[in-house]
Amino acid sequence: MSQKWFLYHTCEDPFAFPVGPGVLKLRLFVQSGQQLSCTVIHSDRYDSPGKEVPLSMERIGSAGAYEIHEALIKTDTKRSRYLFYVENTSGDYLWYGERGISENRERAGSFQYAYFHNSIALELPSWVSDAVTYQIYPSSYNQGTLQGITDKIPYLQELGITVIYMTPIFESPSEHKYNTSDYYKVDPGFGDVNGLKELVNQAHQHGIKVVLDAVFNHSGDTFFAFKDVLEQGEHSPYKDWFFIDSYPVTQSPSPNYETFGKAEVHMPKLNMDHKDVADYMIGVAKYWVREAGIDGWRLDVANEVNPLFWSRFRKELKAEYPELLIIGEIMHASGPWLRGDKFDGGMNYVLRDAMLEFFAEQTTGPVRFMEQLLHQEALCNDQANSAMFQLIGSHDTLRFLTACKQGGRGWDRVNTAEKRMRLAVFFQLTYIGIPMIYYGDEVGMEGATDPHCRKPMVWRECDQNTALRKWYQQLISLRMGHDVLRKGSFSPWFTDEARNVLGYVRRSDQDKMGLIINNSPNSYQLDLSPYRSDQNVLTDVLSGSTFNNTDRLYVQIEPFGCLMLL
Amino acid sequence: MSQKWFLYHTCEDPFAFPVGPGVLKLRLFVQSGQQLSCTVIHSDRYDSPGKEVPLSMERIGSAGAYEIHEALIKTDTKRSRYLFYVENTSGDYLWYGERGISENRERAGSFQYAYFHNSIALELPSWVSDAVTYQIYPSSYNQGTLQGITDKIPYLQELGITVIYMTPIFESPSEHKYNTSDYYKVDPGFGDVNGLKELVNQAHQHGIKVVLDAVFNHSGDTFFAFKDVLEQGEHSPYKDWFFIDSYPVTQSPSPNYETFGKAEVHMPKLNMDHKDVADYMIGVAKYWVREAGIDGWRLDVANEVNPLFWSRFRKELKAEYPELLIIGEIMHASGPWLRGDKFDGGMNYVLRDAMLEFFAEQTTGPVRFMEQLLHQEALCNDQANSAMFQLIGSHDTLRFLTACKQGGRGWDRVNTAEKRMRLAVFFQLTYIGIPMIYYGDEVGMEGATDPHCRKPMVWRECDQNTALRKWYQQLISLRMGHDVLRKGSFSPWFTDEARNVLGYVRRSDQDKMGLIINNSPNSYQLDLSPYRSDQNVLTDVLSGSTFNNTDRLYVQIEPFGCLMLL
Repeated sequence: MSQKWFLYHTCEDPFAFPVGPGVLKLRLFVQSGQQLSCTVIHSDRYDSPGKEVPLSMERIGSAGAYEIHEALIKTDTKRSRYLFYVENTSGDYLWYGERGISENRERAGSFQYAYFHNSIALELPSWVSDAVTYQIYPSSYNQGTLQGITDKIPYLQELGITVIYMTPIFESPSEHKYNTSDYYKVDPGFGDVNGLKELVNQAHQHGIKVVLDAVFNHSGDTFFAFKDVLEQGEHSPYKDWFFIDSYPVTQSPSPNYETFGKAEVHMPKLNMDHKDVADYMIGVAKYWVREAGIDGWRLDVANEVNPLFWSRFRKELKAEYPELLIIGEIMHASGPWLRGDKFDGGMNYVLRDAMLEFFAEQTTGPVRFMEQLLHQEALCNDQANSAMFQLIGSHDTLRFLTACKQGGRGWDRVNTAEKRMRLAVFFQLTYIGIPMIYYGDEVGMEGATDPHCRKPMVWRECDQNTALRKWYQQLISLRMGHDVLRKGSFSPWFTDEARNVLGYVRRSDQDKMGLIINNSPNSYQLDLSPYRSDQNVLTDVLSGSTFNNTDRLYVQIEPFGCLMLL
Repeated sequence: MSQKWFLYHTCEDPFAFPVGPGVLKLRLFVQSGQQLSCTVIHSDRYDSPGKEVPLSMERIGSAGAYEIHEALIKTDTKRSRYLFYVENTSGDYLWYGERGISENRERAGSFQYAYFHNSIALELPSWVSDAVTYQIYPSSYNQGTLQGITDKIPYLQELGITVIYMTPIFESPSEHKYNTSDYYKVDPGFGDVNGLKELVNQAHQHGIKVVLDAVFNHSGDTFFAFKDVLEQGEHSPYKDWFFIDSYPVTQSPSPNYETFGKAEVHMPKLNMDHKDVADYMIGVAKYWVREAGIDGWRLDVANEVNPLFWSRFRKELKAEYPELLIIGEIMHASGPWLRGDKFDGGMNYVLRDAMLEFFAEQTTGPVRFMEQLLHQEALCNDQANSAMFQLIGSHDTLRFLTACKQGGRGWDRVNTAEKRMRLAVFFQLTYIGIPMIYYGDEVGMEGATDPHCRKPMVWRECDQNTALRKWYQQLISLRMGHDVLRKGSFSPWFTDEARNVLGYVRRSDQDKMGLIINNSPNSYQLDLSPYRSDQNVLTDVLSGSTFNNTDRLYVQIEPFGCLMLL
């Protein structure tokens, strides 16, 4: 078959997925740099040939090797048949359907999205779009107790966050508590069940949700079932709860059972394919929602646990608690886990990597940064993208400010570190998804990777970077004040590679906001004349400045400055 | 980002899927015609950088715009990190990982297949590899009864088939019975529950499995629940079992409720999102397995039913009956439904389209035919490909022999019709998956689409094409006699576009078989010298001829002939 350009589509999430009743989003990858215009030709799947209608696709942007083009198909019949027509400026064209890519329409065939179901699978908790999460490492926050955290709820409310996510709080001999002894017991060092209830109650009274950390990939070696296996060996009724290579079970010099990571002896891997183990953990997950009223689970090492378990987990938990948020810890591309039947969202470490390179290290420019954003977005459906925990750091990474100080370009790079961190936070809080702030980042805490990133929270005002905290506060407040920042779509606006400046747009049915980031030590002049609004006045909601088209078409953006244009 | 060639992979079925304990198959699409060699670099995901090992990928063939390259990763740790290195003959190269395609390895990142689960989801019934299915339209087979079909089991056994699939047999006012009145009752015109049990028993005694047709997308309008809605309107407890637009419910001039197809008034669409309806149909499905001992369900209009229902269906049915076969009727690309959590296989109408064009119409040559095969295979995992019902016709299509008579090339095309059908059957019975023979095709029945393709089975020997029947018999027998034809992999061998000849290879650990099809009215001379076996003797198991390398390196294949070389 002759072939002009490469195209890719499959009639499956994330290339075809419902975004509302009778509305299907189609996504097409086309080879970059070919100036291709794409049209989708569609009809009801039972309509006779010739009844199809054309719909122009929107070019979202380049993700590097490929560009993303999208279209929304609307139908009353809920059944669709479609194919793509792709043309360049010289009039060369290709058809693309389920039988392949061809110059001949019949040979391309048609894709069939047989039926648009109104499925609960793609519904998110109603509060997701208002969420700004704050991650707490309980041992290091305030007195290392749940009571200590409860006492700081007014602080969190003032900061403006709406969700607390805590790393594990259940009984465990370690500080990090990822090796659980008792899934049904709050660690005595943190408090007890009443302390948790009090925390959740107080949080709820202040409009804050609480998400806990569920460690179901492995238990601790002090978990009752594993202790029994250690003691009774192959006579233990729990021996199939784990993956034991041989008996007797030994822990040194190296474990003869499967563990998390590379021979983490205190973390025996749980056999979640075993019905009793699965039942036990589903029981744990339901217990804490019911007993303490928590609002979500973040699932540790989620992508090493059988996906079939997660499908069951979602189904059972969401049936009882439809407003529960389910976030999987996947440190890599998480698309395959976010097709609607497992997690609502993931922990977006891939985004962090892109932000680290662009803002902290400055080893990439705006083109590559934008490509990375679009590449990752394109691998998920819209709902998943809107429920990602968008982070710049966590208890498993070096802190972003430290990364900014270690990296950067130019003779003055150490002095611009905080400015670059501010830009990253600006991006994080004006991007799609759920921003997740790691405790202490907001007051300028520094630290390399674990254990340095887990140091005690800095509470003395004289030790805090209060200007940075106010920056967070202002941005969270602006996010809360503008629907378009919480619910609008994201698309690239422009990139100026030479000057290290980029712009992007958030857009809803009502509003449109343009955001500009100058990631360079030079001021930048932006010509706004092509973007004049109907009202003839543009406002930078960050500074309050207005730009009247009649007098100020050119806007000056200061070094490492940013703009939020409404 | 600069870009030399297009590549596509995602760490997800069908680009990454387990094929056995600790074994992962990786599939990569690369731009066609670039002579690219591909290597996958992999390690345990927790191994430090630098510990990766390289593995050359196998080029399977071209699917048109892209080529398919595959590799098997084996690991003891069940956790994998990998990226691709693609190079052309000039030494230009690209890396490809989860962060994209780049000349820079670090910028490409790595894909992560976090854990290889030993999942039941991808297990098929043990008998699938031995299956040759025979589709019966019960109204037209023998006296139009189950007893009539039972009486013909010796005939079927002689033919050699091992599975009977019958279109619906439950109570319904129509001949085709796709509008069910009573899911728990055998249609009185066909017999009763005892007749079905007798059929299944007799079949089992002759080594034949029985698959029934489940119509869960819609019921008949004579189904008790819909009758109640017709009578009681919005007061009916069953009103939410369907999609009613308004009350009272009317059927003419057009239905004010959702139906199958375009206003098929007698087929109201069932609301399978309603728990009671879902429970009811799961009950039906289990009942007939338990009561009559059937071996599988073929699911009608499967892709218009909520996929979440099918996940539940599979989970519950397979838990009780792990040897049950589940085939979804999807008349188009069925990959998205065959990822391991819904159906074992589909009805492969897409393959039929390709065979129709190549053998019957002769509007495509061997290159396009092979591309179509690989294109469809590449969109499914191996297990799904091995469980497809591979058909050349059904109760919903015109018969293949008729298509051969209507189509074809050359002055003698009508006279070659049967020969071309024979080649199609040869291909069907030497290809992967489960061959499905539509009743009567084996004795030369003809007919256009419904109702002509549903005519009574021809039983009088004098009216049968007994030579064709013997051809089927011989090929089924050869398939049964050679493991490699039932369990081996499939790959292209050669295509001779000008002469309209193609070859393909079936390969297992033990055996290798080369198959050649001459789809032209000219004889073909094949040079076998590059393929001489170690034993120096090649055998055409079809004719019994042997080709001794010392004397006969050139094999003559007659017009519309075929060869099966061991």
